[in-house]
Order: sequence, then C-alpha cells, then structure tokens
Amino acid sequence: MTAIRYVHGYSSRERDRLTHQANTLSELLHHDTVYAPGTLVLECGCGTGAQTVLLASRNPTAQIVSVDVSATSLDQARRRVEAAGHRNVEFHEASIFDLPFDDEHFDHVFLCFVLEHIAAPTAALRAMKRVLRRDGTITVIEGDHGSWYCYPHTPESSRVVQCLIDVQARLGGDSLIGRRLYPLLAEAEFRDVRVSPRMVYVDSSRPHLVEGFSKNTFIAMVEGIRDQAISLGLIDQLTWDKGITDLYRATELDGTFCYTFFKALGKR
Amino acid sequence: MTAIRYVHGYSSRERDRLTHQANTLSELLHHDTVYAPGTLVLECGCGTGAQTVLLASRNPTAQIVSVDVSATSLDQARRRVEAAGHRNVEFHEASIFDLPFDDEHFDHVFLCFVLEHIAAPTAALRAMKRVLRRDGTITVIEGDHGSWYCYPHTPESSRVVQCLIDVQARLGGDSLIGRRLYPLLAEAEFRDVRVSPRMVYVDSSRPHLVEGFSKNTFIAMVEGIRDQAISLGLIDQLTWDKGITDLYRATELDGTFCYTFFKALGKR
Repeated sequence: MTAIRYVHGYSSRERDRLTHQANTLSELLHHDTVYAPGTLVLECGCGTGAQTVLLASRNPTAQIVSVDVSATSLDQARRRVEAAGHRNVEFHEASIFDLPFDDEHFDHVFLCFVLEHIAAPTAALRAMKRVLRRDGTITVIEGDHGSWYCYPHTPESSRVVQCLIDVQARLGGDSLIGRRLYPLLAEAEFRDVRVSPRMVYVDSSRPHLVEGFSKNTFIAMVEGIRDQAISLGLIDQLTWDKGITDLYRATELDGTFCYTFFKALGKR
Repeated sequence: MTAIRYVHGYSSRERDRLTHQANTLSELLHHDTVYAPGTLVLECGCGTGAQTVLLASRNPTAQIVSVDVSATSLDQARRRVEAAGHRNVEFHEASIFDLPFDDEHFDHVFLCFVLEHIAAPTAALRAMKRVLRRDGTITVIEGDHGSWYCYPHTPESSRVVQCLIDVQARLGGDSLIGRRLYPLLAEAEFRDVRVSPRMVYVDSSRPHLVEGFSKNTFIAMVEGIRDQAISLGLIDQLTWDKGITDLYRATELDGTFCYTFFKALGKR
C-alpha cells in the first residue's frame, strides 16, 4: 500500500473546512455528476466523505463503493453517510494503487481532490483504469492553486499562497494539477477526454461565497499550513501574518477573489 | 481631449490580432450582449471596430453610436462596418472624458477592452454615466493578464507576460483590471452591479482555440511588445526568446492555456 501524506492534516478544523468546501461548491462541481440507475461507481480517496454524501444524494439509484487508505477517515465517512440517511454506499480500506477489485468491475470511477496529493498521478490513473469496464467513464475533479488571484493584491498574499503550493510539492503533491488534467488523462490512455473549468468568482454581491469559499475554504486552507511553512523556513512570521491579513482584506466590500477548479471526463 | 497611448500600437498585424480575438471570443463575451429594438447604444472606444461589427450584427434593430479618440481608427471602423453591411452605426471622434452628447442621452453604454488603457477608470465611468439615462445599463468587458497560466509552465513564460503587464502599467494602464470591475463600477456609483467571469480554457481537443486564442490572440499580443520590453530593460533578449518559445510549447498536444475575461453590468 502506498502511503499518502495529506498536506492539510486530519484535524477537526480541517474536517469542517472540507465540509464547507463541499457544500459551497456542490452545484458548481457536481450539477453534472449524474450516473444512470443501477450503475456501479467507484469513489477513490473518499477521505472523511465530504464528496461521498454529495455523490450519494445526487445518485440515489447508483451503487457507490468508496475507498480510502485511512481507516480513521473511513470511519468518519461511514458515520457521515449514515447520518445523511444514504444506504447506497459501501466502504473499503484500500490504496488506489492496489484496488481489491476484479478487472473491469465498475461502470464509473470518480475522484475529487485526490490526484493533487499523489506523486505518481498517471500510475494512479492507470491503476483505476484497470477496474473500469470498457466505455466506462472516469471523472476527476481538482483545484489549481496557481489559478488563485484577488483584489486588492499584494506580494505578501501571493507569498502565503505560494507557501501552500511549496509545502504540498515537498510532500510529493502538485497543487497546480488542475491545468494538467487533460494531458494526464491522455497519458493514461483514456479516450474522448473533455475538461471543463469551474471558476469561482467572489465579490461582495455574493456574500455566501465570501464566507463559504474565500474565508472558510480558501483562506482556511492556507492558514492550515502556517506552522509547516514557517518551520520549513519558506517564510517568516511577520510576512506570513501580513499575507493572511491581506487575504482577508480581499474579502471586504470592495474586494474580489478568484479560483478555478477543473473537472475532467474520460472514457476507457 | 485626453490622449490615450495604446500599448498594442496601430500596426496591421495588431488589426488582424484584434479581428482574431473578436471572432474567436464572440460567443463567449457577447452571447448576452443584447439590446431591445429601437434602443440607443453608445459604444465608447470603438477603435478599429472589431467589437462594433459584433455589436451591430447581434443588435440589428438597435441604434449604435460609436466613439473613439483616433480618427484613423474610426476610418477603419467605418469601413469595416460598411463592408459587413450594417447600417445602424454612427461614428464620432470624441474622448470618453468629454462626450459631445446631452445628459441622459443614451439607453445603454458599452465598452470593451478600453478601461485597461485608461489611467483614471473611475473618472471615465463617471463621464460615461452622465450621458446614460436613469435605469439605463452600462456593460464593461475587460481581460486580466494576471489570470493567465499555462501547462507546461516555466519562469520565462511568466516573465514575458509580466513584461506586457509592466509595459501597459508604464503607459498608465492596468491590464489586471478584470478583477477590479466590481469595485470600479461600485465606486462610480452604478447600481445592481453584476460581474461574470468568462474563462477561456484551451487544450488540444479545442484546436480552434489553440489557433484563434492561444496563438493568434494571446501570444501575438505578448510578442507585440517585444521591442518596448527590451528597450525599457525589463528583460534581456535571450530570456524573451525562451519565454516566447515556452508559450508556444504550451500550445502543443499535451499543453493547456487559461485566461479569463470579465463582463460587468451596472445600472445608472
């Protein structure tokens, strides 16, 4: 089993952040995550189930199998799905690189915010392709931290976001992976690859996004790697504090905030 | 009359580039640029008429008045509109800051790729507001060069794009203005301001965008400021050449290219 070091950690604040993220972005990312009744869907890297509940509620007649490497996360995911009243999800502890399923077992594969944490994304895609039936689809959703910008903009706000990118890179991940989905899926020999960007644009006429995305999803994610960034010597404490203050400045009445997710669909 | 120094110049290659840009992006930017029959629309800063023909063809029953500070550009715009067979456009040589029209004369104001070249965008918006009737709308479309990124990405490709941003800033413009449209229109006291981003995502499954946008609109625009960037000492020739080569690299089969335009609508 290939261990994955998860840049954002496993704290309860991080679990809350993932919930905010999933709920705020549900329509943008998942309005077209729709599977035919009776189909068998594999969710890879379900974590604590933030996406699983959305997948299950949008596809009540599909059979979902969700896997993750962390038993602790799986427990939380199971409880979350039960609490939401969904009965169409099964959980398995497994690595994406060593899936305990027969060749061509699934109709569809789904993964969201997973490839960015993996050092060998093409190998991961090939491993998932093995368990996908011919003409079955894979859906991959990722962010791209290089797509972020805001107004007003300062060098320090860019510095703290760059720290997040650098910390994730040191753990073997790539937080600029959104823009790479097309070549990655093509390299793993999926067919008919189509990528659609899903941009989040925030200004003060959209207060639910100021709270749900800018503050509680994006800035919270950056704040989460403060200690790692400082202890790695990527930034000093004063610059860090100014960068975070500047990010919050862009959530005020005259501020704007931009970020883009990418959703890719490919066929086996 | 306030003179505007136009960063991209007035060459025939630039005229071709503007035509490519307008045609490739027409649907993305203008599918919702629709005015009621009989309404009077002021286009500010029409240049050589690349947007004017689109405006006229999408709104054949509206009366369009297009103004620009350059008599040479107006001549080209007039010929272009005539060649396209539109008879609903009138041209006037005028500055946005000193419009030769009565207060509240127009039902709508439209401007595209204009504010980015103006040192005092809020003053410009206020001057245009004067000639707009109560409850009339203003439509503003701008790019944002800070929204650009590509794959594969190199430091040199970022450097040449940064040169374009810096050259435009030295001429008093702001090529990062897209993200600022909301606060700018709010500051000029337009009401009900709504901004919608229009992202261009390009990979090799979209060959018309590889040619029409990545190469013939964006890279052509960057290439256009080569001599200014080098003579201003913003970059040396070797780094420039590598940056341009790297931009073209991102238009190959496994490359991707991203850029976002912003469209704002406000009411007087």
